[in-house]
Amino acid sequence: MKGSEFSDRVKTFVHELQNEIVSALEASDGAKEFKKIEWKRPGGGGGDSRVLEGGNIFEKAGVNTSIVFGELPEVLQKKFGSPHREFFATGISLVLHPRSPHVPTVHANFRYFEQPDRAWFGGGADLTPYTVSESDFVHFHRTLKAACDEHSLGAYPQYKKECDQYFFVEHRGETRGIGGIFFDFLKDDMEKNFEFVKSCGRSFLPAYIPIVESNKSKKFSERQKKFQLLRRGRYVEFNLVYDRGTLFGLQTKGNIESILMSLPPEVNFDFMASMEESSEEKQLMSWLRNPREWA
Amino acid sequence: MKGSEFSDRVKTFVHELQNEIVSALEASDGAKEFKKIEWKRPGGGGGDSRVLEGGNIFEKAGVNTSIVFGELPEVLQKKFGSPHREFFATGISLVLHPRSPHVPTVHANFRYFEQPDRAWFGGGADLTPYTVSESDFVHFHRTLKAACDEHSLGAYPQYKKECDQYFFVEHRGETRGIGGIFFDFLKDDMEKNFEFVKSCGRSFLPAYIPIVESNKSKKFSERQKKFQLLRRGRYVEFNLVYDRGTLFGLQTKGNIESILMSLPPEVNFDFMASMEESSEEKQLMSWLRNPREWA
Repeated sequence: MKGSEFSDRVKTFVHELQNEIVSALEASDGAKEFKKIEWKRPGGGGGDSRVLEGGNIFEKAGVNTSIVFGELPEVLQKKFGSPHREFFATGISLVLHPRSPHVPTVHANFRYFEQPDRAWFGGGADLTPYTVSESDFVHFHRTLKAACDEHSLGAYPQYKKECDQYFFVEHRGETRGIGGIFFDFLKDDMEKNFEFVKSCGRSFLPAYIPIVESNKSKKFSERQKKFQLLRRGRYVEFNLVYDRGTLFGLQTKGNIESILMSLPPEVNFDFMASMEESSEEKQLMSWLRNPREWA
Repeated sequence: MKGSEFSDRVKTFVHELQNEIVSALEASDGAKEFKKIEWKRPGGGGGDSRVLEGGNIFEKAGVNTSIVFGELPEVLQKKFGSPHREFFATGISLVLHPRSPHVPTVHANFRYFEQPDRAWFGGGADLTPYTVSESDFVHFHRTLKAACDEHSLGAYPQYKKECDQYFFVEHRGETRGIGGIFFDFLKDDMEKNFEFVKSCGRSFLPAYIPIVESNKSKKFSERQKKFQLLRRGRYVEFNLVYDRGTLFGLQTKGNIESILMSLPPEVNFDFMASMEESSEEKQLMSWLRNPREWA
């Protein structure tokens, strides 16, 4: 299936947003530009991956879009409860791993999924900091909340909660980061949903770029860097063991490099890693164990 | 359930083997000793983890034993096809991550599983090299083959094949390393099986230690180190996405630090990492894509 007329408008939005974000991140990084890598999916469709490695600010950054269609694997057809196997999906997915532990890792994803008898949106954005900067965390959440409020009052508190639940690493008893918003299976009034998704998508840059700017020049200690490398290990644990998007990508034989671009460039896995060596680390860990309200 | 009389003999073997291996590895490393960490499993049983970090030879090494029992999660009960939920399991599991890319990573695991109506052994050993040393790889496989042949002629070719299948990373189209042996659900004549497992377990040190000795003093290039860090990334991908032991541990709420001790200490995940920059890398990659016979 090739996607409806509605899906064409989503595709256009997704690609516009990709270009906006890529331009803003290049301006912010100042040293490196994104490379464009296009790929085809054997079963139908393909993608446009933009990758920046070894930048001034960003050690590894990916901003990907994809348009994929064809036949769902049976296990996913069952999960979605549709009599149809045909599907069409498009979306944008980004993960940024900054070099400095003072600049948080960020992830955002907005996707549209269509079958002959149904369609829905999913998406979200969430922050994974390695040092404490409370006003920045409040800014991130308030920006997302404002974007939600524009089209759906009450959405933010629900999606903030769903974000904390989704990014909970069961085997560690902690969340991946300090959350943001997460929503899935957004059905029914798809015009309204699309406005909501556009609003969230366009809030990404104003939510994140000021945090880069206010933290990028701060000096960090060797231990702060080590803490970042250890926490990145937990990022890997979440992505490979639990992440639905990663699983969907592997199951639908998506482009493996684009799927796993989310993995941090340099990671440490220590045995019984101590992650509460300072009051800053203790503070961060307590927020991961007991998510708090930020907006 | 507390385990049968037979299981007591397996426990004894497992702990003897742990002590033998730990002593030999400490002698080989020369700089660091293993720390002993005992843990209890909330549902029943516990373990004895031995860990060495920051050694001369070994950057991270774990040699764990565990005795766990209680109630199986439903999903595993179904998988094993037993009307019983009670289980008892004991085993030894080791993963060694040497510092030098010339010394291969190695994994071995021997385990015994018991339910009121059934019992079986599983296990294996496999090598993950980062540079080419063909005579060492032949030695590793021939030592395992000799251990198999002692009790079960024909077992080695079958278990070598099962090892290549088990450690195949579907989404990469390559195996984790150059294999070894892998077996599971070894039932029926349990006395004979026990002799077989003991023989395999005791072949670990003679299979591996000579490889450490012949490679530990070789100089390596920056690129050889980088290749090791990248290949370690693939090791992580296998362990977190596919490994049955890791999954079993997470599902039965085992000790998370002992389960994930298998992850390498320092890892790189590059986008579209080139892994064929030299004839040595090309050679290694071809063996991972098309497993060959070594014995």
